[in-house]
Amino acid sequence: MTTTRPASLANGRPYLAIPGPSVMPDRVLRAMHRASPNIYGGEIYEVVAAIWPRLRAVAGTTQNAAIYIGNGHAAWEAANANMFSRGDKALVLAVGHFGNGWAKMARAMGVDVEVMDFGTAAPVDMARVEAALRADTNHSIKAVLATHVDTSSSTKTNVAALRAVLDAVGHPALLAIDCIASMACDEFHMDTWGVDVAVSASQKGLMTPPGLGFLWFSENAAARCRNSDLRTPYWDWEPRAKGTEFWQYFNGTAPTHHIYGLSEALLMLEEEGMENVWARHRALAGAVWAAFDVWGSENPAIALNVARAQDRGFSVTAARLGGHDATRLREWCEHQAGVTLGIGLGMAAPGDPAWHGFLRVAHMGHVNAHMTLGVLAVMETGLQALGIAHGAGGIMAATKALSHT
Amino acid sequence: MTTTRPASLANGRPYLAIPGPSVMPDRVLRAMHRASPNIYGGEIYEVVAAIWPRLRAVAGTTQNAAIYIGNGHAAWEAANANMFSRGDKALVLAVGHFGNGWAKMARAMGVDVEVMDFGTAAPVDMARVEAALRADTNHSIKAVLATHVDTSSSTKTNVAALRAVLDAVGHPALLAIDCIASMACDEFHMDTWGVDVAVSASQKGLMTPPGLGFLWFSENAAARCRNSDLRTPYWDWEPRAKGTEFWQYFNGTAPTHHIYGLSEALLMLEEEGMENVWARHRALAGAVWAAFDVWGSENPAIALNVARAQDRGFSVTAARLGGHDATRLREWCEHQAGVTLGIGLGMAAPGDPAWHGFLRVAHMGHVNAHMTLGVLAVMETGLQALGIAHGAGGIMAATKALSHT
Amino acid sequence: MTTTRPASLANGRPYLAIPGPSVMPDRVLRAMHRASPNIYGGEIYEVVAAIWPRLRAVAGTTQNAAIYIGNGHAAWEAANANMFSRGDKALVLAVGHFGNGWAKMARAMGVDVEVMDFGTAAPVDMARVEAALRADTNHSIKAVLATHVDTSSSTKTNVAALRAVLDAVGHPALLAIDCIASMACDEFHMDTWGVDVAVSASQKGLMTPPGLGFLWFSENAAARCRNSDLRTPYWDWEPRAKGTEFWQYFNGTAPTHHIYGLSEALLMLEEEGMENVWARHRALAGAVWAAFDVWGSENPAIALNVARAQDRGFSVTAARLGGHDATRLREWCEHQAGVTLGIGLGMAAPGDPAWHGFLRVAHMGHVNAHMTLGVLAVMETGLQALGIAHGAGGIMAATKALSHT
Amino acid sequence: MTTTRPASLANGRPYLAIPGPSVMPDRVLRAMHRASPNIYGGEIYEVVAAIWPRLRAVAGTTQNAAIYIGNGHAAWEAANANMFSRGDKALVLAVGHFGNGWAKMARAMGVDVEVMDFGTAAPVDMARVEAALRADTNHSIKAVLATHVDTSSSTKTNVAALRAVLDAVGHPALLAIDCIASMACDEFHMDTWGVDVAVSASQKGLMTPPGLGFLWFSENAAARCRNSDLRTPYWDWEPRAKGTEFWQYFNGTAPTHHIYGLSEALLMLEEEGMENVWARHRALAGAVWAAFDVWGSENPAIALNVARAQDRGFSVTAARLGGHDATRLREWCEHQAGVTLGIGLGMAAPGDPAWHGFLRVAHMGHVNAHMTLGVLAVMETGLQALGIAHGAGGIMAATKALSHT
Repeated sequence: MTTTRPASLANGRPYLAIPGPSVMPDRVLRAMHRASPNIYGGEIYEVVAAIWPRLRAVAGTTQNAAIYIGNGHAAWEAANANMFSRGDKALVLAVGHFGNGWAKMARAMGVDVEVMDFGTAAPVDMARVEAALRADTNHSIKAVLATHVDTSSSTKTNVAALRAVLDAVGHPALLAIDCIASMACDEFHMDTWGVDVAVSASQKGLMTPPGLGFLWFSENAAARCRNSDLRTPYWDWEPRAKGTEFWQYFNGTAPTHHIYGLSEALLMLEEEGMENVWARHRALAGAVWAAFDVWGSENPAIALNVARAQDRGFSVTAARLGGHDATRLREWCEHQAGVTLGIGLGMAAPGDPAWHGFLRVAHMGHVNAHMTLGVLAVMETGLQALGIAHGAGGIMAATKALSHT
Repeated sequence: MTTTRPASLANGRPYLAIPGPSVMPDRVLRAMHRASPNIYGGEIYEVVAAIWPRLRAVAGTTQNAAIYIGNGHAAWEAANANMFSRGDKALVLAVGHFGNGWAKMARAMGVDVEVMDFGTAAPVDMARVEAALRADTNHSIKAVLATHVDTSSSTKTNVAALRAVLDAVGHPALLAIDCIASMACDEFHMDTWGVDVAVSASQKGLMTPPGLGFLWFSENAAARCRNSDLRTPYWDWEPRAKGTEFWQYFNGTAPTHHIYGLSEALLMLEEEGMENVWARHRALAGAVWAAFDVWGSENPAIALNVARAQDRGFSVTAARLGGHDATRLREWCEHQAGVTLGIGLGMAAPGDPAWHGFLRVAHMGHVNAHMTLGVLAVMETGLQALGIAHGAGGIMAATKALSHT
Repeated sequence: MTTTRPASLANGRPYLAIPGPSVMPDRVLRAMHRASPNIYGGEIYEVVAAIWPRLRAVAGTTQNAAIYIGNGHAAWEAANANMFSRGDKALVLAVGHFGNGWAKMARAMGVDVEVMDFGTAAPVDMARVEAALRADTNHSIKAVLATHVDTSSSTKTNVAALRAVLDAVGHPALLAIDCIASMACDEFHMDTWGVDVAVSASQKGLMTPPGLGFLWFSENAAARCRNSDLRTPYWDWEPRAKGTEFWQYFNGTAPTHHIYGLSEALLMLEEEGMENVWARHRALAGAVWAAFDVWGSENPAIALNVARAQDRGFSVTAARLGGHDATRLREWCEHQAGVTLGIGLGMAAPGDPAWHGFLRVAHMGHVNAHMTLGVLAVMETGLQALGIAHGAGGIMAATKALSHT
Repeated sequence: MTTTRPASLANGRPYLAIPGPSVMPDRVLRAMHRASPNIYGGEIYEVVAAIWPRLRAVAGTTQNAAIYIGNGHAAWEAANANMFSRGDKALVLAVGHFGNGWAKMARAMGVDVEVMDFGTAAPVDMARVEAALRADTNHSIKAVLATHVDTSSSTKTNVAALRAVLDAVGHPALLAIDCIASMACDEFHMDTWGVDVAVSASQKGLMTPPGLGFLWFSENAAARCRNSDLRTPYWDWEPRAKGTEFWQYFNGTAPTHHIYGLSEALLMLEEEGMENVWARHRALAGAVWAAFDVWGSENPAIALNVARAQDRGFSVTAARLGGHDATRLREWCEHQAGVTLGIGLGMAAPGDPAWHGFLRVAHMGHVNAHMTLGVLAVMETGLQALGIAHGAGGIMAATKALSHT
């Protein structure tokens, strides 16, 4: 029994800490490991019927929900196709790579997109938004698009504040929020906050393998967008949300195995309770931030990407280590300790080696104290092993933070 | 240990004989039951790299393949979006519900669609097609759309003959074929037959749960459709087939678990060999037809939907029993014997009780002699149990047919 | 995509029709696919607590049940070790290979075994048993051992009749029955029939992977065997059935994953109801017998092993085809049609090529009309393909039999 | 979506850190999730054939290996049954609960057992062993039994030193070692160390669900024990290790699903290499010890059970917290953070509340830096949350220890 592999402490269950896909619960995977069901009747009709109220509850709405076989980009395109006709105007508030991505997609579809870009580490400046809306006296802006938490920067947008701005100005624009990285992680109240369109996907907080995109939309949006000329049969949200026949929910063959997985994931969220789900994410995010604060205390190159805690998402943390240290640390964690961290995204131009200075730690979905503290402890071990300067005791700060939860 | 359920012979492994989703191989389900992989590097890059040549081989092409997170309808929409600009003209040859469905979808997207409808039980009349193409002297028809096998009627289109018509007329229209119900079941040679666009999905002959749609497209199609104005970022086939970055293949997050399933399914097809796969489907279809011929020999109400064997698909068989007998038989088979047959689709107008006279038997994908003979034996048992008049010995004819394979 | 495999109709889900292990239900396999549980508390305590009443109900007893990590042979040894001291006398009634196997095992353990062997195709002759018991005037026989259904011959013993003999004679011998091939297939009422020890294992009618053996024992047996000197800590049934601590049930670490599987299997039996379970097996066995009767009607070499229906088990059918035809048919079914039949066992001496003339068809556990009719249809196809003389229409007779159920 | 459960940081993947069953690898569980195989031929014969050399390699032997369907207690009984006749004398060296358990089992089987008990926290005193062996001038001791690592105390026995004692004395006793808690965790060289019988089970370092026990035995042991009168058919190691027919390996029906799991686990060990496997366990154990040393530095009640590092096993760590603190910490970790620790075992008399002061941390089998550091970080969080006095920074010491690996 010879081997060519060097000793490593990585053998064991690999842990994936990238911001999506997240760690899939055993319950979800088990639910998906099954024979194909009949799609012309029987059990799957009941399973889908039970999904709707749970799916709406996750987003805090009693209005409409639509499921797409697709990923997050599909959900973006679906939102665009339903909201806009060619030439309609959209104001996109970008706080990272994905906000810009959504904008780019809308523009490619023929929407007249104005991007207000706040860079990769700053939140939306509500004053600038207000000014832009006030200037739009003829209400040419049909919708304001923003990301709740941008997966790349981990910057969070204060959606309630954004709604307040719209209300203060009296602008009738639809408010559309990308919740791909935040749904079922960060607190979100679609109806209370007056959100018209919320967008998400299965593979993050919703703990289901990639393959489903979601739209929640208000009756207001439904009414105002009925004649959008970008709408196509596959993207049309009306039959998906209000169809009278089963096949309409999915515009054709249902994603049978994903439906069983999603059903189980939504049941898990219901069992825990959304308030508890959010509190758990908040606490784990706090532990991650506490660790970075200590590590950065003796090495100014190490820093969280977003300065103020209130502007950080609860599901993912983007950070900087500088030089090539983020890449070195990621590789050490993966090969020596079994933890795969996320790469930095959108922080450096393509080809710029500065990207090796950035990384992301995910703490979204099916995640608990053991998993996240294990990640932080591994990271601190790697910092020591690699001789990267850092304030010692980040993991201690994290344990302290969680001991007060 | 009391029970309220009456005795039934259905307890045991339920068997699904509907025309999609088909029976998922254990190997595929097992491959999908796994932790989320990293999507920024590592093993999944190799898995996807190995998928491409196998996916092209299944369709008999060395040209382009694109994978969509979506179902068959998504693949239709993708094909339309890539091929057409608004106002482009398409000729659709419909031999059943789904040919008409594709046409309807194209029309809703703004394509100028002409449907040549051959009814629910007849093949394409090549002479009519030829006449129509000859009449289109200015070559306004951009593409001819046809279904290889229509899932509803089980009618097969002779694609090689269709190509011959186009060639004879010298018409430059693209030839686009819906292979959703036929791919990896019925012989298909995209390049040899001069097909420009082939459309399919995962859940039938490709033995993977619903959730993936596929397009194969020729270089000719790529070149002629480059400026289609219906094309949107999600549907655009160029980056999916020719992207230089992993995320482009899926326009965002990869369908990680489906990728592992598809990879295994394609490996199984490769191991068996496409010629053997087709031969297996041909033989099993023949057994089904033989059984129906006997059953119908003493009850004229019982008949295969498609008269000539050459016009029948190898993956599904539509048939008529008359009255309410198809529904009665389906229910008996499901509740008394563990077999779920497909309902008739598109054979009667909505609300017309005549639909109770139709059913479909699927024999697609991961299917062998045991499975299909078991279905036929159960059906013949049900015919006897229900007192439905029929020629006795359909199952005998089926065994005889397979004994000569 | 080349292949070296010839076309075959076997590709698809392989079907195993050997008399154990049987077809495992998806529900059982899914229940076993899980993380290790805590064994010092928590959920598994509740799962095991719920197993006991269901396990007793399956055997028709309110007395004692014991679970062993082991197979059927382990359960035999456990029964022997609990019942006997060295030198104790046992009367074994053998109707096949396994009855003799149990006897051999007891003898190797030091029990004074008298075997009454009825051959491989005949039931127990109750008159001979009665004579032997009457002759044992000093009641030196401590226990009478018999197989309910011998897996090799498929011969069934009339246990109620056997009890009646013991009662008529007034002999106090314990009555111990091997139900390995019959439990949850053939009707069995431990308490009503006055059985003192019943033996079984997980992998047949109990629909759980091999790895668990079971004993059910009466209070009478418990009392009379308390001082058996063959008893060892691992085999001792007292702590397993009456332990006060969890670890005692399994004499050490619990078979955690099997426990979850068994729990699900017992729940399935409860849901169906034992009367329905037995009725299902009876009907399917009848279909198999009907087919063989027809096949043998024109070829005297083809015959069921057991002449009278009342002497045949409901879970497995042993049969003769003669010459090498059983082996030829088995191989054809496996390689051409996806069905693996059981070999003949104990019908010919080791090395005697006559064994190629025997086979067994299992119809035990998770089995329905589709599965069994599929097996018979495949067999009839193989008989034709191989040119083995037979009466045509065995499968027809099977469908007819089931249509009256 | 209301909830009655309070917020907790435990939701996410639960982590089991009890000393068996250990964390099952996904590869192993996936291998077991499969249809029943044929057991009269085919693939499983090849799978088992490939198991033997790997199973021997794990124990460092080229001699004999036997697999039992059973648990660790079954393997103990099998070892006893093969080695001894009634009245044979055994010297058992006990360093914890399980050494005494093995002795008790042997005594119950009729072996004349002398236990040399070194308590719950001390290693074997080789001088005492030597004295006892020298006193046994007529070599009445047939075998010396010892535990390599006692699961309860985590005390390790120096097996090479024990062999040296036997050699120095020139005593021919067989050397039998219980490796249940150490195999594939702690370095072990059966042949080099002159071990005659090694005992283990599947559910710890061998990463397979409970249900299999293992014996490795020397030719010397085979020869000297051939006529042991405790030997029974089920326990007999000869046919299991040297059988000529497949069924003999398992004395009846093979544990089909476990075989597939074991095969995968052994392949994983081979891929990693035993030296690397041991190095990984050594390093992770060192991290655990480092943490406890710090925690105990300011609270004398907190201490590792075994004083000297050389006497501690690499797979499990027993420790004391005093009072009820171990139970309090275990409960906090489970309910607030998702980590289930092992209870103390054998450290206090039954009913003595002192047992609430002990716990065990497992780090055996499929375990990496992330998993073990996560456990330690959770424990330190719990110490803080519960206000249990401790030296701060145990987790820091653990990270430091691993950074040097």
